[in-house]
Amino acid sequence: MNNILDKLAIHTITTKPWSAEECITKYSAAGVSGITFWRYNFETSSPRDLGNQARDAGLEVVSLARGGFFPAETQLGRQTAIDDNHRAIDEAFEAGAPSLVLVCGALAEQSLEKSRGQIQDGIAACIEHAQQAGVILAIEPLHPMYAETRSAINSMQQAAQLCQSLDNHPNVGIACDVYHTWWDPTLEKEIEHAAKAGNLTAFHICDWITPTTDLLNDRALMGEGCIELKKISAAVMEAGFKGHHEVEIFSNRWWGSDQDQYLSAIIHSFNNIQK
Amino acid sequence: MNNILDKLAIHTITTKPWSAEECITKYSAAGVSGITFWRYNFETSSPRDLGNQARDAGLEVVSLARGGFFPAETQLGRQTAIDDNHRAIDEAFEAGAPSLVLVCGALAEQSLEKSRGQIQDGIAACIEHAQQAGVILAIEPLHPMYAETRSAINSMQQAAQLCQSLDNHPNVGIACDVYHTWWDPTLEKEIEHAAKAGNLTAFHICDWITPTTDLLNDRALMGEGCIELKKISAAVMEAGFKGHHEVEIFSNRWWGSDQDQYLSAIIHSFNNIQK
Repeated sequence: MNNILDKLAIHTITTKPWSAEECITKYSAAGVSGITFWRYNFETSSPRDLGNQARDAGLEVVSLARGGFFPAETQLGRQTAIDDNHRAIDEAFEAGAPSLVLVCGALAEQSLEKSRGQIQDGIAACIEHAQQAGVILAIEPLHPMYAETRSAINSMQQAAQLCQSLDNHPNVGIACDVYHTWWDPTLEKEIEHAAKAGNLTAFHICDWITPTTDLLNDRALMGEGCIELKKISAAVMEAGFKGHHEVEIFSNRWWGSDQDQYLSAIIHSFNNIQK
Repeated sequence: MNNILDKLAIHTITTKPWSAEECITKYSAAGVSGITFWRYNFETSSPRDLGNQARDAGLEVVSLARGGFFPAETQLGRQTAIDDNHRAIDEAFEAGAPSLVLVCGALAEQSLEKSRGQIQDGIAACIEHAQQAGVILAIEPLHPMYAETRSAINSMQQAAQLCQSLDNHPNVGIACDVYHTWWDPTLEKEIEHAAKAGNLTAFHICDWITPTTDLLNDRALMGEGCIELKKISAAVMEAGFKGHHEVEIFSNRWWGSDQDQYLSAIIHSFNNIQK
């Protein structure tokens, strides 16, 4: 990739005030090369239409966010989750997204071990469908502060072990998000391991701000916080990762700002990391 | 220990509205057997006086919280931190506390690696003084959500590696706090390892509530949240840990409640874990 922006993708939730159509137009005009849709985008337009619109505008559809949330107290609940993941795989296929990000899920009411088992079973129950659709299920390890609500998979090492437990199936991968993993002293080693195993399929970027005042929606733009983005990005590329660097920022602060200026700031900060 | 409460200790910050003297009186009357002072307690009474008062009331002084915060941008800042830790060691000695808990520190402005190096150097610069005072420096791994502000040591494994880097000095140990470590799939294995290496010197309990609305002061009473306290407590005891189980809860909610009722609730919930 000659142009730095050739590897920049943005998640539509990053600019949540914009419709999916606005995201497509604006990202494309700004020179961004990839887009990751969120499933809420399909409430008003079909995956196929949005995928085509994106490609017509010169954007690659990088991924769909998100499937997962497999743990449930009842068998019915777990089957409902699996069915929903099958629909998400269909949507990824229709949108032309080669990957579905999995936020694996967790339940405060049950043990981590139980949730982890249900996650493995849930993914296993989706692999065949994913293979038929040509979609990779990208396990995203989440920050330990989400271990009881959003994902009981909280480190790159755990994600790697989960891939292994699923026989290193080619339709299962790992989405490494710096927000969730930056603190981990084994991060660079695990990035290298995941890449060597052929499992590093997505890379998400943003920043961690001090103080973080909201556990969910206080992520920062790259450069605003403490994450060593240059170092981690370099490690990801040295490991041989060729995919997009996907900007995924949940931020009440940025969502409340002028989104055009915000998009310019995203591009500016992304360029800074690559220098 | 025949009586369950024989292994219960409470950190004075848990009942922050009470003075240290009130903590001593109330804990003792309730049948609690140990107390961990916080350094702010010494603003109004000397470590020696409080230590003696506690022992006169039948309480064991378990530990002093807290030293640490070694990383600093300048050499002067780092030396200031070391000097302050020497004073904390003196205070632990004077209070008759065999251990000083270390919240190791971190700086958002510098890399984790740099902070970790400064932590190691800082502890190394305190070991001789700790040995002379007969005080164990207990490294407390903190939850990864504090990695840029309070501690760049974020897992039991990292704490164990730090002990090893400090030549497994007998005056360096590990304080395992469930709040910081409960999510870690290697926790029980690391508890066992730490105990085998002679490094498991403290065990702190509380709970993780859903949703957590404040990163600092929204800890929960045991039983209110999702932490598998029975399982973790059993692992600590099976590993051969003979010390107190120290209740350490920072909670705006509990601090705003009737502290006598709260103390009863602490004892009730502690008994429940041990059943």
